[in-house]
Amino acid sequence: MVKYAILGFGTVGGGLAEVMHDQRDRLSAAAGDDLQLGYILVRRDMPDSPRADKFVRDFSVIENDPDVAVVAEVIGGVGPAYEYSRRAILAGKSVVSSNKELVAVHGMELAALAKEHGVSYLFEGSVGGGIPLLRPMVRCLAANRLDEVYGILNGTTNYILTAMDAQGRDFAEVLAEAQSLGYAEADPTADVEGIDACRKTAILADLAFGYNMDPALIPTTGITALTPADLELARTLGYTVKLLGRAMRTRDGCRAFVQPHLIPLEHTLASIGGVMNACTVRGSAVGDVTFCGAGAGRYPTASAVAADIADAVRHRSEPMVPDLGRPGGRLAPEAELISPWYVRADAQPDEVASVFPGARPVYGSTMECGFITGPMDRRTLQNRLVTLGGRAAWRVLA
Amino acid sequence: MVKYAILGFGTVGGGLAEVMHDQRDRLSAAAGDDLQLGYILVRRDMPDSPRADKFVRDFSVIENDPDVAVVAEVIGGVGPAYEYSRRAILAGKSVVSSNKELVAVHGMELAALAKEHGVSYLFEGSVGGGIPLLRPMVRCLAANRLDEVYGILNGTTNYILTAMDAQGRDFAEVLAEAQSLGYAEADPTADVEGIDACRKTAILADLAFGYNMDPALIPTTGITALTPADLELARTLGYTVKLLGRAMRTRDGCRAFVQPHLIPLEHTLASIGGVMNACTVRGSAVGDVTFCGAGAGRYPTASAVAADIADAVRHRSEPMVPDLGRPGGRLAPEAELISPWYVRADAQPDEVASVFPGARPVYGSTMECGFITGPMDRRTLQNRLVTLGGRAAWRVLA
Repeated sequence: MVKYAILGFGTVGGGLAEVMHDQRDRLSAAAGDDLQLGYILVRRDMPDSPRADKFVRDFSVIENDPDVAVVAEVIGGVGPAYEYSRRAILAGKSVVSSNKELVAVHGMELAALAKEHGVSYLFEGSVGGGIPLLRPMVRCLAANRLDEVYGILNGTTNYILTAMDAQGRDFAEVLAEAQSLGYAEADPTADVEGIDACRKTAILADLAFGYNMDPALIPTTGITALTPADLELARTLGYTVKLLGRAMRTRDGCRAFVQPHLIPLEHTLASIGGVMNACTVRGSAVGDVTFCGAGAGRYPTASAVAADIADAVRHRSEPMVPDLGRPGGRLAPEAELISPWYVRADAQPDEVASVFPGARPVYGSTMECGFITGPMDRRTLQNRLVTLGGRAAWRVLA
Repeated sequence: MVKYAILGFGTVGGGLAEVMHDQRDRLSAAAGDDLQLGYILVRRDMPDSPRADKFVRDFSVIENDPDVAVVAEVIGGVGPAYEYSRRAILAGKSVVSSNKELVAVHGMELAALAKEHGVSYLFEGSVGGGIPLLRPMVRCLAANRLDEVYGILNGTTNYILTAMDAQGRDFAEVLAEAQSLGYAEADPTADVEGIDACRKTAILADLAFGYNMDPALIPTTGITALTPADLELARTLGYTVKLLGRAMRTRDGCRAFVQPHLIPLEHTLASIGGVMNACTVRGSAVGDVTFCGAGAGRYPTASAVAADIADAVRHRSEPMVPDLGRPGGRLAPEAELISPWYVRADAQPDEVASVFPGARPVYGSTMECGFITGPMDRRTLQNRLVTLGGRAAWRVLA
């Protein structure tokens, strides 16, 4: 018998307690030991909860119980979550987490601490929710130099873009609906401004390229500037629009950024609708592999955290700590990346042709036109946009 | 330092030797020990090969070298591959394999033998080639009751179907081209008749549902009966055609079969073209997760086998043997599964409407029509097909 504790009893914490209870036999078999819920750390009493007998409000009860081998941190944020994670590791307990902000900002430090104290530090649920992604990337692709990682990493923005695309509605209207349905939070900033996708991009880059990247330095553009006209023109051109986090290996670090992209309709990522996520990993031997599924939500995220709990227990004798890289990686400028671009402009075909020879503009219901350019860097593009009076430009995933 | 041996020096064996050499540092780090190539078992001398100094033709040299900890079996088939795998395990060596025929037919026995002798038996490369699939399914989804597994599991047939769909050519013509390009073997039977996909379906079912299924009993239909008219009508209806291996949990076993299916064009599996593979796993907590990538080929398969070698070395103290299930599972009849169907017939709209009310036939260049039925089992369908004079019918993935 081995005890675990759950820190936080919100959406993920509640789902985790349920999944651990419902699949206890399966998870205990995977762990090689009988998994028993020791405590749930809550901020306020909920005497009517069926799990009220496990509630504690003082972390030191968990910290000081030597039977607790694993602590699942599903609080979120970098305040108490960071403090409790540290203290749990210092107390010789493995920590598993779905907290992308904490992993992106303090993951390298917590990983080093876990190594030092001989415990596991796992965070499969922090990127891609329930999709098996980080472990397969690190373990199953161990024979590959990873060269690029990119994907749809935020379910809220993908839900909004999918609805804008299908229904021709504008951003604010769809956001309000997503909020009423619980797909977007009351303060949607972290999602719609790309901050959540940026944190996940940083974690992917850390694992893939060997350098620990500061998410605050990763250029990040959300979806708030996208208009129904962009989605209409994109579709006419044979594309859909997705917010992508991208990271690619460079000699001494990586290039990483978050931006809306046009994706060809026949591309696998174009088929990822609603709150689903998908991430493509490019390996030197395997080529491109893509992992798709539910990127967030109560049970999918709990699925990832529960598997981490079982693995932490199973590998007590040889703790698992994914390598989040070393400091010092250089972040290459996003602007230098050469790609095709989508441009929206109020221009006649001959005006377009004079600035972007070979481009084939299509016209939408707003009388604006959209077209796809040849491959170029951002500076070249911007010089030409000034000449043409372009109104919007987004990269095309080539 | 730990030695490994490669059995077989064909496409995969050659690729494996290259990948193990090129990524030695990375793989040794993953293994936690310095990986050194001990031997390559070959059937004939190749004195000009750069690896000729590692060649042996007598398996007992490998069997009797106590420094060899892992044997990678990439011979294929169930003859010598089975014999050598058994002997390696009996000699206390871990065995890793990309041999789907062997795993589907003798995997349960070899797994039991490996457990008994305290060594690992791993076969990530046997399904989905380089795609991380079996390990993520078993380990990362440990918190899920798996209810269904299905996918595009054979690259040769997917190449042929993709080319037939894109170019309107017939099966025989595209097969001949695939053979000349090396995408299909001289004897293509195992691929085009679905036998290869059937073996992989059996392995997926074994791992997902807890019963070991006999691949010989799984109803299997290949792609040889598909015509250009089917692909044309499917596309007009908004679908493409893919050969799917499917397995779903039942109370006392599973339902499993291999058949061509119509897939909606906006579905993720519809985006999987050419020799790519993709597999969807449905879990009770996570929902559907899909893994996509190169399902075969020299380097992708080597990528999977190489990671297995590293894992077998890393986990010498707690060997890894995936659970291929126990005997006795009942195979539920394929015919009873209720699904929508695509039908091709030489019939007028009123004739179609009289037998399949509500169906909306479209007409193609052969003057035949195609339409999608409501959900029904195979017997109900066949009774109606007799009445209508239907010429072909395939399941639609709903």
